[in-house]
Amino acid sequence: MERAERDGRFDHLFTDTVRETLEDDAYGAWRSAAAEDAVPLGLGFPYPESFPNDELVEAAAAIFETEGDVALQYGGGEYADHLEEFVAERARERGIDCTEGELLLTNGATHAIDAICRTFLEPGERVVVEAPTFMGALSVFRNYGVEITGIDVDRDGLDVDALGAELESRRRRNEALPTLVYTIANFQNPTGTTLSGERRHALLDLASEYDFVILEDDAYGELRFDGEVLPTLSELDDEGRVIHVGTFSKTIAPGVRTGWVIGHEEIVREIRGVAAGGANTFTRGVLGRYCAEGHLDHAVPELRRAYERRRDHLLRCLEASMPDEVVWTEPDGGFFVWVELPSGIDTEELLPRAAEEGVVYLPGSMFYPGDRGGNGLRLSFSQAPPEEMERGIEALARTVRSALPAE
Amino acid sequence: MERAERDGRFDHLFTDTVRETLEDDAYGAWRSAAAEDAVPLGLGFPYPESFPNDELVEAAAAIFETEGDVALQYGGGEYADHLEEFVAERARERGIDCTEGELLLTNGATHAIDAICRTFLEPGERVVVEAPTFMGALSVFRNYGVEITGIDVDRDGLDVDALGAELESRRRRNEALPTLVYTIANFQNPTGTTLSGERRHALLDLASEYDFVILEDDAYGELRFDGEVLPTLSELDDEGRVIHVGTFSKTIAPGVRTGWVIGHEEIVREIRGVAAGGANTFTRGVLGRYCAEGHLDHAVPELRRAYERRRDHLLRCLEASMPDEVVWTEPDGGFFVWVELPSGIDTEELLPRAAEEGVVYLPGSMFYPGDRGGNGLRLSFSQAPPEEMERGIEALARTVRSALPAE
Repeated sequence: MERAERDGRFDHLFTDTVRETLEDDAYGAWRSAAAEDAVPLGLGFPYPESFPNDELVEAAAAIFETEGDVALQYGGGEYADHLEEFVAERARERGIDCTEGELLLTNGATHAIDAICRTFLEPGERVVVEAPTFMGALSVFRNYGVEITGIDVDRDGLDVDALGAELESRRRRNEALPTLVYTIANFQNPTGTTLSGERRHALLDLASEYDFVILEDDAYGELRFDGEVLPTLSELDDEGRVIHVGTFSKTIAPGVRTGWVIGHEEIVREIRGVAAGGANTFTRGVLGRYCAEGHLDHAVPELRRAYERRRDHLLRCLEASMPDEVVWTEPDGGFFVWVELPSGIDTEELLPRAAEEGVVYLPGSMFYPGDRGGNGLRLSFSQAPPEEMERGIEALARTVRSALPAE
Repeated sequence: MERAERDGRFDHLFTDTVRETLEDDAYGAWRSAAAEDAVPLGLGFPYPESFPNDELVEAAAAIFETEGDVALQYGGGEYADHLEEFVAERARERGIDCTEGELLLTNGATHAIDAICRTFLEPGERVVVEAPTFMGALSVFRNYGVEITGIDVDRDGLDVDALGAELESRRRRNEALPTLVYTIANFQNPTGTTLSGERRHALLDLASEYDFVILEDDAYGELRFDGEVLPTLSELDDEGRVIHVGTFSKTIAPGVRTGWVIGHEEIVREIRGVAAGGANTFTRGVLGRYCAEGHLDHAVPELRRAYERRRDHLLRCLEASMPDEVVWTEPDGGFFVWVELPSGIDTEELLPRAAEEGVVYLPGSMFYPGDRGGNGLRLSFSQAPPEEMERGIEALARTVRSALPAE
């Protein structure tokens, strides 16, 4: 509905937190960032040819063939169970300790983040995020009525020293300390940067010293193209303070909406309690079979190569077209490149012109908890066909040039 | 994990509400109520032959054939959209006003109930439920730290007069009034009773007078075998106070985990906000195609006939075997019959003996918010093969006889 039509007749019945977010955009509002004939460099959508359509149909047929009496029942069949084991085993292969009771499958990573918030966050408590960070997580945090503090990201990811200084200063002033720190340590959304090994250790030390939990969103962790694989925060964690979130959205498809939480069993038990009742055993069975057949193991290296080529191509296009005043990140994996225009240029204001020129990006301000980031923008190399990227980046370059102050 | 092993090291970080429910059973713990060789009359599971396995595989193949580039993408394709329209149209056919903005698809009915709770319930607020009621809903309400009041159910469903008296008394004593009343008006879980037409109007009057919302859980509404179709509370509601919840768990299969909320658009908008991020577009596309092909329209009358035969058979078995001291309900639809043994017999204590005799039921106490219902039990006619029901009820009758006081 149009907001102007709201008459607020039920507002007094809503919770305080809901009342405070009445004017917020709906989750996913950013998906409307598309324009006909414009090259889609805004959204973190996987490219359509990556979707394993045939394999999922085969998997569905196979589970109904072998366990058709239970595949659609509450609880599902053996393939749904197998998916849990598969995710746990894959986590262990990556160095993440994961035994029974330490894993919970969820309806995607955002559902996982939401359930973690519900377990830990009271209204008015404090959450620390990277600035910029994933707008979907910001939207979930806001739903919990918490105070959100953004700590800058540089080329080595979250500035953990700055976080340490902030925490120390808060403690000295006797101010509230955060309950939870949210980080996308690998190929961060939106900057593409990766938290350095040293900073991972330092962040864990801070968690221990200041008694917070770390929500490690590892949506892109399997999609590294360059550089050395770094241990996840979860692997480095001795205290059980890291809650690791993963998803199949980027390695199978967003539409299967399946993610997971891995953490200390006392934490996972409570998350399971609040995330109750929504297990899609149809999807879990299909994915369990898909993974058991080895399709995921086969797909991930192919996806890495495909996204690497896409990243390379996008960076080449940027190099070729962008004015000297513009800088951008060079990610070792994931989906995103972060671009910064000269300060004073507002990428949100600029977007309609860009769309007209033939490109869509996401403006930087949507990735910040506060009123910042106006001159940044996120480009994704995940969705647009490579052959269109050049046209898109040329359109972006023209748009940027038109906004630069005359020399 | 075994609870004895909990060391509570993270308890201080959990929210107050989570801390208060640390000892609660996990959602779905009742599903362990099964015993080898015992006839399964406990769980509300649809019978396996009802699952449309082949049709879902065909639907999956068809959506990938026609919209394979978007079926697995964020947002999904046209068939996923179609599912929303289909649910809305089907609701309208049943007399429920449902236009755009008034419907939200969810990951099953429990997810819908959860999201409604999150929109309306602050810890310490009050919820009214039928006593007995669906244990899954009780489990969700408890997660919100609310006070739960049970109002008795008789053969015409929720005793609305008793609710009125309770509300009046609370108002007179200046005590907190409920924010939300939860009712399963059609073929209630666990009693199988249906709220009479007169009481539906009276309940709506109370909602208006005492300013609460009604959560109408209509999970079984389409499965009426006998008697006149009554208008849903949603249809009768002039003020937008009824939030209607439906699900495909009983008409397609539990494993597709797809339900919905229908309500006033100002309410649905906020529920959408808190239920963010978990749309399984794969399942939605498959179901959209399944429904578009007319399979649901074809299946529902067949399911009605099948469940009717099952109900008739179970009632005949009860009639034939049970001692005179035992009474039970005769539902016009749904999955359940509620049985009451002479007071003083504890059906929870009796369950192991029943399982040994060859039958499993769910003990009554689990359906009550407080410490009541010890002599009740729920039987389901949805899952067990009809040819086994006789054996199951005979086992139940033997068990009950063994517990009756010697004459």
